[in-house]
Amino acid sequence: MRPRFTRTRPDGDTHHRDVCDRCGFVAYENPKIVVGSVVTHAGKVLLCRRAIEPRRGYWTVPAGYLELGETPEEGAAREAREEANASLTMHGLLAVYTVRRLSQVQLIYRASLADGLFSAGEETLEAALFDWRDIPWDDLAFPTVHWMLRHQRAFEAGDATPPFGNPSEAD
Amino acid sequence: MRPRFTRTRPDGDTHHRDVCDRCGFVAYENPKIVVGSVVTHAGKVLLCRRAIEPRRGYWTVPAGYLELGETPEEGAAREAREEANASLTMHGLLAVYTVRRLSQVQLIYRASLADGLFSAGEETLEAALFDWRDIPWDDLAFPTVHWMLRHQRAFEAGDATPPFGNPSEAD
Repeated sequence: MRPRFTRTRPDGDTHHRDVCDRCGFVAYENPKIVVGSVVTHAGKVLLCRRAIEPRRGYWTVPAGYLELGETPEEGAAREAREEANASLTMHGLLAVYTVRRLSQVQLIYRASLADGLFSAGEETLEAALFDWRDIPWDDLAFPTVHWMLRHQRAFEAGDATPPFGNPSEAD
Repeated sequence: MRPRFTRTRPDGDTHHRDVCDRCGFVAYENPKIVVGSVVTHAGKVLLCRRAIEPRRGYWTVPAGYLELGETPEEGAAREAREEANASLTMHGLLAVYTVRRLSQVQLIYRASLADGLFSAGEETLEAALFDWRDIPWDDLAFPTVHWMLRHQRAFEAGDATPPFGNPSEAD
């Protein structure tokens, strides 16, 4: 048996919610938090080629959904362990992006490799350090990966102070 | 009929989740995003006395849960409209706090009154502007309200650069 939801406003609620016809469960939907990091080492940037959908085969940074009871920094560090077998040293918040269509808020941190070590994790086909001039701009997995790499570049150049937000006309 | 959950690991999942015995619904739990703002006007700070539980009768800043499809700044502005009938001008991210026990991430912005106007909204007993020396420190609703007011003060004094995080030993 599967849940069967009807859109209705529960007693005393200000919003309509999905309520299961069979069991009465109210499925409150909240925006989700994605945490990730732009990881640098010796002037290069760590990217991971995705082994899973969506965007399998494309390059991204270590990132994923924050789990219950984690701080965003802990979540970003966990994602780097899972996806790139990397231990991070965290250096502060680089950006807060909103992906409105997905109701996602992304908290992206600046980080570096704690010991220079990394390798492809289970959800990663390959992990590699890229010089800025070699970044595979045409094969990045998501628009926000473009944004955060450009913002990291602007930060390193001293052009602006983090945290950055969505580029204009792009939320 | 109500949902009856069993803690189990769904096929292909890496984590245990609550699954309804009756309908099979998987209740993924995600951390929640609270958005709010420290609102200043003519050197004073806007506080609202809560008309609802928890902490009815205590003072807080305009803040609440981010809704689907909002940017954090939009959510913070909406909360100020709802709780204090105030239009805000946003000035950037003041702090990112984690309330681990509640799996909350709080994004707190610096803001000012757009036109100097405000009044108590439905969930507010009274709204008022406080000089720093008159802040009702002993009657603040939540620890994070203490943190954000202290951090706003440090920012105004030029002592530190936002965004701030949890005070040490307090996450």
